[in-house]
Amino acid sequence: MLVTEIIEQIKDNRKILSRLLTAIESESPRSEEVLRELYNHCGNAYRIGITGPPGAGKSTITNQITKHFRKEGKKVAIIAVDPTSPFTGGALLGDRVRMSEIGMDEGVFIRSMATRGSLGGLAGKARDLADVFDAAGFDIILFETVGVGQSELDIVEAADTVMVVLVPESGDAIQAMKAGLMEIADFFVLNKSDRPGSEQAVTAIKTILYMRDHDENSWLPDILKTVASENKGITEVIAEIGKHKSYLEQKGKLLNKRSERFRLRIKEIVEEKLIRELWHLYPTEQIGESETGGEGKKVSPYIYAERIIQSYKNKTLQGEGNGQST
Amino acid sequence: MLVTEIIEQIKDNRKILSRLLTAIESESPRSEEVLRELYNHCGNAYRIGITGPPGAGKSTITNQITKHFRKEGKKVAIIAVDPTSPFTGGALLGDRVRMSEIGMDEGVFIRSMATRGSLGGLAGKARDLADVFDAAGFDIILFETVGVGQSELDIVEAADTVMVVLVPESGDAIQAMKAGLMEIADFFVLNKSDRPGSEQAVTAIKTILYMRDHDENSWLPDILKTVASENKGITEVIAEIGKHKSYLEQKGKLLNKRSERFRLRIKEIVEEKLIRELWHLYPTEQIGESETGGEGKKVSPYIYAERIIQSYKNKTLQGEGNGQST
Repeated sequence: MLVTEIIEQIKDNRKILSRLLTAIESESPRSEEVLRELYNHCGNAYRIGITGPPGAGKSTITNQITKHFRKEGKKVAIIAVDPTSPFTGGALLGDRVRMSEIGMDEGVFIRSMATRGSLGGLAGKARDLADVFDAAGFDIILFETVGVGQSELDIVEAADTVMVVLVPESGDAIQAMKAGLMEIADFFVLNKSDRPGSEQAVTAIKTILYMRDHDENSWLPDILKTVASENKGITEVIAEIGKHKSYLEQKGKLLNKRSERFRLRIKEIVEEKLIRELWHLYPTEQIGESETGGEGKKVSPYIYAERIIQSYKNKTLQGEGNGQST
Repeated sequence: MLVTEIIEQIKDNRKILSRLLTAIESESPRSEEVLRELYNHCGNAYRIGITGPPGAGKSTITNQITKHFRKEGKKVAIIAVDPTSPFTGGALLGDRVRMSEIGMDEGVFIRSMATRGSLGGLAGKARDLADVFDAAGFDIILFETVGVGQSELDIVEAADTVMVVLVPESGDAIQAMKAGLMEIADFFVLNKSDRPGSEQAVTAIKTILYMRDHDENSWLPDILKTVASENKGITEVIAEIGKHKSYLEQKGKLLNKRSERFRLRIKEIVEEKLIRELWHLYPTEQIGESETGGEGKKVSPYIYAERIIQSYKNKTLQGEGNGQST
C-alpha cells in the first residue's frame, strides 16, 4: 500500500490504523516513511496527560472523561503506558473494565504500550502514536501513565494539558512532589475524595503550590475533587481542561508549547538516529575487547570512547554511513 | 598541577581529592584528562550498592556498615545520591547524623551528588567518582541511592554487590518489585524488623523470589533482618557481602561483571561525546526554526532530523568537529 493510501485509510479503517501503530512500536523501517508524510495531517487533536501514583484511579477517570467527550461527539484515542503492569496485573484488570465500558465504541481507540526493555525511547514512540491518532482524525488524545520515573513524565509532557491524580491518603502529596509531579501538573484531581483526609490533602497540595513563585498572569493549578467510580466531579474536570485550553490559546502559549514540543521531538530523533548509526557501523560487541593497552597499561574508557568515535567518523567519511540517513 | 601529580596527591590530600570530585561533577575539561590517566590506578576497591524506598533506613545502614569496615582498617568512600532531598530535607538530616558519627574519621569520605537537572548523566558521573575513590586507595565504595526511577537503578548497577533495603510495612515488597528493585538485588535487608509484619514481609519477598527461574548454580538472594539504629544484624550483612563476593570470584563472575561495566561505560561516553559535539556544531536553538516547508506543507520532525544529521556530517567532513574529539 502507498504511504498516501495508508494515511487516507487510517481515518476509517481501524485494522490499518492498528497495524500502523504496531509498525511504529516495533520500529519497522516502513513506519518512518509513513510518519514523515503523516505529520502534514496533524495539529487538530487536543492532547491531555493523566498521571499519578499507582491505584489513584487514573483508568477510571480516563474512562469517565472519554464517555464525556463521546457525548459531545468527539473521537477519543487513549494511549496507556504502565511499566508496572507486567507485575501487578492492575492495568490488565483496568483494561477489562475499560473494554466493557468504552471498548466497543467505534469513536474510541485504546492502545496500551508495551514498555519492558524499551523505556528509553518510550516517550518518543508515544508521541509518534499520538501523531498517528491526530492524523487519523481523533479530536482528543489521552496519555494515561503511572507517575514514576523520568520516562513516564516525558510522556505526559507531550500533552497540552496535564492533570495529576492523587488520593487523600496521607503522604500522597509529598510522594507526588518527590516524583516531580507537582511541576508538571496544570491541575490536580483528588480522586476518592469521599475518603477521610480529603480536606487535609487539598490543604497540603495548596500549601505546596503557593510556596512556588507565581504572579497574577501565571496559571495557578487548581485542585478538583472527584469520586470517579460514581462519576462525581467529572463535569468539573472537563470544564477545567477547557479553561486551561482557553488560557493557553489566549496567551499564545498553545503554539509555543507545540513548537517547543516539535523541537524536542526533532532533538530526540536526531540523537536516536545518530546513535543507532554509530552502533550499526561499530557493533557494540566490539567495544572494549581488550582492557589493556600496548604497554600493559589499563586503558581508560575515555580513551576507548575516543577511538570508537574516530573510527565512526572515518567510516562516515568513507560514505558507509550515508545509506542510513538518506 | 600535572595530571600525574593530582593522581598521586588524591591518595593523601582530601582537599585535592574533593576538588577533583567537584571538577568531574561540573564536567570541567581538565577533569577528563585526569580520568583518562587515573583508570590505570583502579580495580582494587570493592563497590557496594545500597538502595530501597525513601525512609527504609539506607543512611543508617550505610553508617553501620562503614563503621564495621573501619574496624577492619579499610578505607570507605560513600557516594550518596538522593534526587528527592531538595524537597524532603530527609537526606540533609541523615547527613548530619552521619557526619557526627563517621564524618570526622580520616578513613571515610562522604560525597553527596547534586542531582537536580542532571539525571541523564548521573550514573556515569557516579561511576567516574567511584573510579577516583578507587585510584585514591579506598577499599570500599558504597553507592547509596533511593530506589526510584531508572537513573537511580543505573547507579547501583555499577556495584559489585547490591543490597535492597526494605521495611516491614505492607506493600513495600510489591512497590520494590514494581520499581525493578527485585531484579537488581543480590540480597535484601529487612530493616526495622522489630516492627509488626516483619515475618509476613520476609515471606512475601521469598515468594516473589522463588517464582523466578533459578537452578542450583545460580545465586539466590537471601533476606537478612536488621534493626540498623541499634546495630542489630549488621555483622550478618557484612558476612553476606563477603559471601556474595566469594561467589562472584569463584565463578569468575566478578571479572565478567567488571568488564561488562567497562563496556557499558565506554558506550555511555561515546554517546555523550557524540551528542555533545553534534549540538555544539548545530546549536539546539537552530532546531526547527520554521515548521513549514517550501510548499506551505508542515515538515515532519523526521525530515528535519535528517537535515540536521546531514549538516552535522558535512561539518565533520570539513574537519570542524575534530577539535572536540582529539
